[in-house]
Amino acid sequence: MVTLGTSSTLCSFIGVMLPQQINFGYRGKQEVKHARCGGFQIKANVKTPNKDDNSLRVTTSSTLDDFVFRQNFTIKSYEVGANEKASIETLMNYFQDSAINHFKTFGIHRGGFGSTEEMIKRNLIWVFTHMRIETYRYPVCDEVVQVEAWMSVAGKNAVRWNWLLRDSKTYQVLSKASSGCVMMNKLTRKLSKIPEEARREFESYFVNSSRMIPEDDIKNIPKLNVITADYICTDLKPRWNDLDINLHVSNVKYIGWVLESVPESILTNHELCGMSLEYKRECGRDSKLHSLTAICGANNNNVEFYHLLQLEDRGVEILRGRTKWRPKPIRNWGLLKLLLQLQNQRHYLFHTS
Amino acid sequence: MVTLGTSSTLCSFIGVMLPQQINFGYRGKQEVKHARCGGFQIKANVKTPNKDDNSLRVTTSSTLDDFVFRQNFTIKSYEVGANEKASIETLMNYFQDSAINHFKTFGIHRGGFGSTEEMIKRNLIWVFTHMRIETYRYPVCDEVVQVEAWMSVAGKNAVRWNWLLRDSKTYQVLSKASSGCVMMNKLTRKLSKIPEEARREFESYFVNSSRMIPEDDIKNIPKLNVITADYICTDLKPRWNDLDINLHVSNVKYIGWVLESVPESILTNHELCGMSLEYKRECGRDSKLHSLTAICGANNNNVEFYHLLQLEDRGVEILRGRTKWRPKPIRNWGLLKLLLQLQNQRHYLFHTS
Repeated sequence: MVTLGTSSTLCSFIGVMLPQQINFGYRGKQEVKHARCGGFQIKANVKTPNKDDNSLRVTTSSTLDDFVFRQNFTIKSYEVGANEKASIETLMNYFQDSAINHFKTFGIHRGGFGSTEEMIKRNLIWVFTHMRIETYRYPVCDEVVQVEAWMSVAGKNAVRWNWLLRDSKTYQVLSKASSGCVMMNKLTRKLSKIPEEARREFESYFVNSSRMIPEDDIKNIPKLNVITADYICTDLKPRWNDLDINLHVSNVKYIGWVLESVPESILTNHELCGMSLEYKRECGRDSKLHSLTAICGANNNNVEFYHLLQLEDRGVEILRGRTKWRPKPIRNWGLLKLLLQLQNQRHYLFHTS
Repeated sequence: MVTLGTSSTLCSFIGVMLPQQINFGYRGKQEVKHARCGGFQIKANVKTPNKDDNSLRVTTSSTLDDFVFRQNFTIKSYEVGANEKASIETLMNYFQDSAINHFKTFGIHRGGFGSTEEMIKRNLIWVFTHMRIETYRYPVCDEVVQVEAWMSVAGKNAVRWNWLLRDSKTYQVLSKASSGCVMMNKLTRKLSKIPEEARREFESYFVNSSRMIPEDDIKNIPKLNVITADYICTDLKPRWNDLDINLHVSNVKYIGWVLESVPESILTNHELCGMSLEYKRECGRDSKLHSLTAICGANNNNVEFYHLLQLEDRGVEILRGRTKWRPKPIRNWGLLKLLLQLQNQRHYLFHTS
């Protein structure tokens, strides 16, 4: 459980227009999208997109039509990994940023990560309980992607954020994600019910898309231990800059620790195509963690793992997760592996001119 | 020494227009800036800025006027730290990104981080040898900043990248940075002279601004050891996603390790206002590092430190540096410290709804 950062199951088919059905049209120079979703009329006005631009694509009307928020991002040079593609952290950062910006368009945002007036009065902040992401293609440096974000109800004391990441030129879906958010008192660090006054501030913006995104089986992820785990990585610590404005480790940073106990051969030859994370507790500056991984299945070169992050001290559970991996497209990877090995064997002396 | 990521001394005065003198004017709707720099006529055409937009502000003409490149960035929610301000890593990421994009406008970019055709033929990549950055104010979330980047000569086998970070509304300088880049053979991982053929590709874009940015005394940073260091942090390891497309740890990631051995009281009560880093060697995936810090001076609540990053194995030197810190503006910091302490003392159980 971490600050704005979330899981439930996503649509199982690729390329779905979301919500249920979207018809495009133009009114003057303004593009208009209509959709029906769960018997619920949705109309989102978006400006005609400028594909090479990573500014916000914000619905500007203040009516109840503002349900789906769109934001373009250009993949920056510092957001790609060794494979020259956007990292999974980059996509999660985009999802989080679009959720916050969507919240701002409601006109009730008063600071922090989606805090409203009623939340601030009660020292409440949003925290993620779970996050699920499926990725079909990772965008590359300089590519422009569009994130669609919308909020839906998840019981009495949680909300769900839902995202689609699209190629901004073809509108092909590259990734889907969904999350659960609850409120926490930032002084006591205890979870809180959503006060009725706060709920009233944003409930009119919910999109009833639950039938589009069925619940995940995240509750079935087993708790690993030193006997059941196949790979264990110890001595993991947050760095100073892993802390977010809520003064705990950002949920996105957990991914780095999960990957630390994934076998090197998988990291180099496979790419992450699915991930479900259940956040159990906060993680602070002085935490020391162990990352545990166990193989849970393999099929046609695809591999699945279970994961656990736990505190070194008393083994307190921080996160439980499952990841799915598919073979990477082969592209000079033999050479890259060779270089990695070389780097690990020797360090060269450099002279500045 | 690390892939595109750099140090030398910056102008010692704040608010300098760069190059030497810039006169603003408008031709139609297009803003025009003229400057003289080191007896060198500079004219950079920039589109009229849209302040709320973080797309590129690129000079589009293909003449020799394209010397100073401007790019706007909007500080994202995931780019701020616990103090709600852009982190030093964020600024360094912006500098690096603007340098690469500037290089692209030369019309000679063929891939990677600023690789040209002649570099690719010879398996050459750019690597940073040093980086210096001074910051007067850290921008906050959603603020739009403008980076000015230009390239200058640094001897026969190096180039220098120079940057100004400005408030996009007032054009006040928020930060200045400068770096040194050399070439490395990506197969042998050895430094290389800049081949004449490669140099000819970009030397016409050099701005002779050496007298604007005097050399730093980076060579005077002493090498620390366990006796001379006041603070030592061990067991530091790169994470999988710390690797960049050149398959070594990105220069920006080194900052996190440097900060790990800075006393907690400084991190919470001060902010980094100056940093000089000299990159000595690459750092690969399996490296284990020690971060050493020694107090080198204190004056009026300002503090200065020396730093060393070295490999656990044989103490091979990776980076030498110096940082300067000034007191943070006081803003509920007592409360934040209390919360940090609370988090480190206990971990709460969260129930998802």
